[in-house]
Amino acid sequence: MNNFEKLIEIGRKVDPIMIHYLEKNADEAFIPIVKHQILAGGKRIRAALTLISCEAVGGKMEDALLPAAAIELTHNYSLIIDDIIDRGEIRRGFQTVRAKYGDVLAILAGIFYRETIADIINDCQNSKKINELIIETIKEIIDGERFDVLFEQAGRLDRYIIEHRYKHVPLELYYKMIGKKTATLIKSSCIVGAISANASKSDLEMLSEFGWKIGLAFQLIDDFLDIYGEETGKQRGKDIIEHKLGNIVILHAIEEMDNKNKEELLNILRSEVVSNEKLRFALRLIDGTNAKNKTLNEAYNLIDSAKKAISKLKDSKAKNQLIEIADFIVKRVY
Amino acid sequence: MNNFEKLIEIGRKVDPIMIHYLEKNADEAFIPIVKHQILAGGKRIRAALTLISCEAVGGKMEDALLPAAAIELTHNYSLIIDDIIDRGEIRRGFQTVRAKYGDVLAILAGIFYRETIADIINDCQNSKKINELIIETIKEIIDGERFDVLFEQAGRLDRYIIEHRYKHVPLELYYKMIGKKTATLIKSSCIVGAISANASKSDLEMLSEFGWKIGLAFQLIDDFLDIYGEETGKQRGKDIIEHKLGNIVILHAIEEMDNKNKEELLNILRSEVVSNEKLRFALRLIDGTNAKNKTLNEAYNLIDSAKKAISKLKDSKAKNQLIEIADFIVKRVY
Repeated sequence: MNNFEKLIEIGRKVDPIMIHYLEKNADEAFIPIVKHQILAGGKRIRAALTLISCEAVGGKMEDALLPAAAIELTHNYSLIIDDIIDRGEIRRGFQTVRAKYGDVLAILAGIFYRETIADIINDCQNSKKINELIIETIKEIIDGERFDVLFEQAGRLDRYIIEHRYKHVPLELYYKMIGKKTATLIKSSCIVGAISANASKSDLEMLSEFGWKIGLAFQLIDDFLDIYGEETGKQRGKDIIEHKLGNIVILHAIEEMDNKNKEELLNILRSEVVSNEKLRFALRLIDGTNAKNKTLNEAYNLIDSAKKAISKLKDSKAKNQLIEIADFIVKRVY
Repeated sequence: MNNFEKLIEIGRKVDPIMIHYLEKNADEAFIPIVKHQILAGGKRIRAALTLISCEAVGGKMEDALLPAAAIELTHNYSLIIDDIIDRGEIRRGFQTVRAKYGDVLAILAGIFYRETIADIINDCQNSKKINELIIETIKEIIDGERFDVLFEQAGRLDRYIIEHRYKHVPLELYYKMIGKKTATLIKSSCIVGAISANASKSDLEMLSEFGWKIGLAFQLIDDFLDIYGEETGKQRGKDIIEHKLGNIVILHAIEEMDNKNKEELLNILRSEVVSNEKLRFALRLIDGTNAKNKTLNEAYNLIDSAKKAISKLKDSKAKNQLIEIADFIVKRVY
């Protein structure tokens, strides 16, 4: 078992807790629907972050198990909803909840997750604090999802979305979106671990900065893999097919392009159906820019900066595990 | 101002609280979307039940304001989701959230309600208890919604639903469904009021029984009005158009019918599009039975029994107000 497999093992400690709470008060016929999202893979990185963060500041991992399960379920809650909104069919190589059971049951399963999260938090030691943090975090995820949808250039029938779309997305607004959509929950994963250890303010702040920065890097690399990745269980260029302007590679590419290429790329994003041919052309246009390296550099810098943020943590074993997770995020590129 | 208008005034006390919490941490562009459901009417009966239940067992109304706001938001949360699932266009004479802003924004607004509810509960005095109750209640609503959808006879494309539909709905199962979908929250409205007053176990049980029974009656009358009502802001026979077998009037009618009429009615419910002609024919078939009186009698009996359940409450002003609410539920018929 390599180091990263060991980290995944740590995250998996929350699985029986998630299952236990998901099954609580659920009708027998509903249980497989509710469990599908959890059983269909996932690396439990956020749970691992909570558990290791707790240890990193002097806590016992056991004290963070319930909060870590709540964090991991929050992530999966957001995925179920995200798949409904984006009509996702496949995730982690498995059918999404909505693909398997339809949108109606997926909505019901999704909102059932939120009750399960509340249930777990209610049983946590620092329930009030963790509750506040999770509420704030989910509100951020909702807003991130809202921006993400409004950054799309076509593909929706909802009049409100069509009328309120962003035709241009400044980098600053992109970072605001991914901060909400992705980085906040990863930051919260670390903070919840710190809270579970009753960490000092300065320790909590270190972990918070670490989580925020690896969270941003995580999304940059996700965007990168969407355009350049081959074996992520997703189709290459899915964001282009889904008309998403909120992808850092696309935004960097556009930044560099002359007006002609820029309009061609935007036109592809704006077409109601992105054919394979259009997709290939879009990818070629992007390949003609320096967007790839720019994106990777930004991600690497964030990871370096995240590692620096926790350099003063005392527990060296846990600290090394956090660094391992940070490195893993960029290692996904290879 | 008549007595019932006074009751509505009481319920309206939670409006500024709901608005305050809904606006908290919400993006400016998102606020009107989130507030639409609350601003588009509603009689705040559940909030009034919480506030008056609190007084009825010796508490101060102020102590139940936050819990009552959480209860009323829970109701509205369920309506937003219900409208998404049932593709509702009009509610209370206004556009639904999904009709006005589309399904995607409605989903995001809906799940934002759940965060707002959690936020309010976190600020309540008996937050742990109320949290438990609301979690259990929402899980019940989800399950009620699931049954309601599975009681439909057509109109869905989701394979899972088509394969798992109930072709027959015994009355017992119908009552289980409306218990979950409607009565549990109304019961919880009363219980939360009792909890806010630190009521005795016996007082709490009286209010719980009262809430449960008026809750069941409420749904029976709702079903009745769907078939016979004229001015409810909804189309007459909407449940038939929506292929719903989970309507007590339809179930009672089927119970009485000979096989020929029964098959004709079921065939209408099973047709993918229920034309006006088919709807009129279905209503005529139902009119030929005693379903109307049976339904009303059941509702009246429940209301009588609910009133008896609280006959021993000491605060006579509050008790009378609760009786007023119970009576209102059946008065909607006229």
